[in-house]
Amino acid sequence: MGTEVKISVQELIRENIENLKFPDNPSKLYDPIKYILSLGGKRFRPAFMLHACELFYGNMNEAIKPAIGIELFHNFTLLHDDIMDNAPIRRSKPTVHKKWNRDIAILSGDAMFIKSVQFISCVRNEILKEVLDTFNQAALTVCEGQQMDMDFENKDKVTISEYLKMIEAKTATLIACCLKIGAIIGNASKADTDTIYEFGKNIGIAFQLKDDLLDVYGNTEKFGKQVGGDIIANKKTFLILKALEQADDKQSKELSKWMKNSNADFKTKVSEVRKIYNAIGVKEITEQKINEYFKTAVKYFDKISVDKNRKKVVENLVHSLMDRES
Amino acid sequence: MGTEVKISVQELIRENIENLKFPDNPSKLYDPIKYILSLGGKRFRPAFMLHACELFYGNMNEAIKPAIGIELFHNFTLLHDDIMDNAPIRRSKPTVHKKWNRDIAILSGDAMFIKSVQFISCVRNEILKEVLDTFNQAALTVCEGQQMDMDFENKDKVTISEYLKMIEAKTATLIACCLKIGAIIGNASKADTDTIYEFGKNIGIAFQLKDDLLDVYGNTEKFGKQVGGDIIANKKTFLILKALEQADDKQSKELSKWMKNSNADFKTKVSEVRKIYNAIGVKEITEQKINEYFKTAVKYFDKISVDKNRKKVVENLVHSLMDRES
Repeated sequence: MGTEVKISVQELIRENIENLKFPDNPSKLYDPIKYILSLGGKRFRPAFMLHACELFYGNMNEAIKPAIGIELFHNFTLLHDDIMDNAPIRRSKPTVHKKWNRDIAILSGDAMFIKSVQFISCVRNEILKEVLDTFNQAALTVCEGQQMDMDFENKDKVTISEYLKMIEAKTATLIACCLKIGAIIGNASKADTDTIYEFGKNIGIAFQLKDDLLDVYGNTEKFGKQVGGDIIANKKTFLILKALEQADDKQSKELSKWMKNSNADFKTKVSEVRKIYNAIGVKEITEQKINEYFKTAVKYFDKISVDKNRKKVVENLVHSLMDRES
Repeated sequence: MGTEVKISVQELIRENIENLKFPDNPSKLYDPIKYILSLGGKRFRPAFMLHACELFYGNMNEAIKPAIGIELFHNFTLLHDDIMDNAPIRRSKPTVHKKWNRDIAILSGDAMFIKSVQFISCVRNEILKEVLDTFNQAALTVCEGQQMDMDFENKDKVTISEYLKMIEAKTATLIACCLKIGAIIGNASKADTDTIYEFGKNIGIAFQLKDDLLDVYGNTEKFGKQVGGDIIANKKTFLILKALEQADDKQSKELSKWMKNSNADFKTKVSEVRKIYNAIGVKEITEQKINEYFKTAVKYFDKISVDKNRKKVVENLVHSLMDRES
């Protein structure tokens, strides 16, 4: 039953995205938007919003436009992040700034952001200000998270707590925002709205840690991207920061050596770094941390004043995200 | 009297911009925003919004936050446009992407845009949707205008009508939007709101044509930037397009030659192109076109159902923009 509902929600989201109408001209402004949306993605953010709305007996149809708005916003951040990260590939296809150029990626991203505000504003008048405030605050926090992430690149020492603060801002806040807006549209009480926000924040952090984990220990066949991509790019993730924290002198020196070596053979680099991770037990430490956030999330979830059975759909969606192997 | 009110409105805007509070961290996200706002500018867009509000007996204090929001939005567009135009200087100071870097300019621009939506949303609930819709539509049109402008760079032939469509989108729409939002906040009737929008659109086009004109025929001492900058950059403006339209074979060939020559001595290039403009009478043709739009604007302005005396302040502001020599 849960799965059935989940599939139909994904269908609803897909249909609504496919039916989005953009002007034909200027084509270089709108084609990149159509392109990035056509690349798909998990689209769990709009699903969270729709399910949160329904959880509180709200009408899902009332949440569909803002849900699409959140997906537009998320894709706008990907578009601009890819320029900043100089990423050539997104979802197995060329990124917008590679397929067109950097200027087009900047401007079509801006236009996509405006479209997202338009869609998020499609709620009834009496909740519009609250929905907008929630969204704008989250959007600003996402930018702060992205800046922190960029700052980390040039920083010698990043602490675990700084890292957690960054992923909370960059990833978890938007997930929390989706759930909160869904709850507001569904007429949830103030207490429930705040609680589902905290639930989302903890799930969001767990989700990002899982992403970090899968980058190193993911199922190669199912994982759409190169395994060890973060290691190759010397990206500061929970795993490397934890490894550096726990490493003895020899391991520490070796990790630093690999992190400074950008010309190493990719496979060798990934396998050597993974060996150190294994010796330290980074996989287990990360799984434990994920579990910690997951448990906190569940505590908040249990506090939501809705019948247990009604919560099954959100629960299933969360499990599908947390148990994924890719 | 008009001047006195105008000065105090500029003071109000200046104070409100100076009192804007941004977080200290991440500093690379917020410092560029503080920086670009500190560079000043004419700030006539927020002034238009405030005066439009007052024109309809609205309380200016109710419009100050959205007015600051529009100035934030305008500065966001400058920030991103400067990246796309690869402009090194803005208001006699280094542009954000030169002072920091391109990625920081993209992201702080995004954050600035979100801040602008936050400020524009600070209106009473019953008009929030209308204000937002007006703003979002204008913002999207500004992006379309910028894309058209970029498209022109790689286009051999741009018609005058295409050019006018571009500046209407890129410049005039936002001015019209300012006046309309001011009118909405001031409780203007639907008819007056629509009329002031059309007034703004025509004033906006006239304003941009005046900008084009000043670039070639401006008062060098008062004009803050290099005279002839558009000629040097081979920018397709009303003047060059009109000159190409009216030129005889010899003039046409010479103009094309200069436009293709990016290594020419700046002074020689500007003075030679200006000679052709003078022979064709481009200055007078442009002044005539400005006057055309100005007259249409005045027609709309006269239709606004408010006492003539009350209109003096907006009239003065428009004249100060149209009669400027720099």
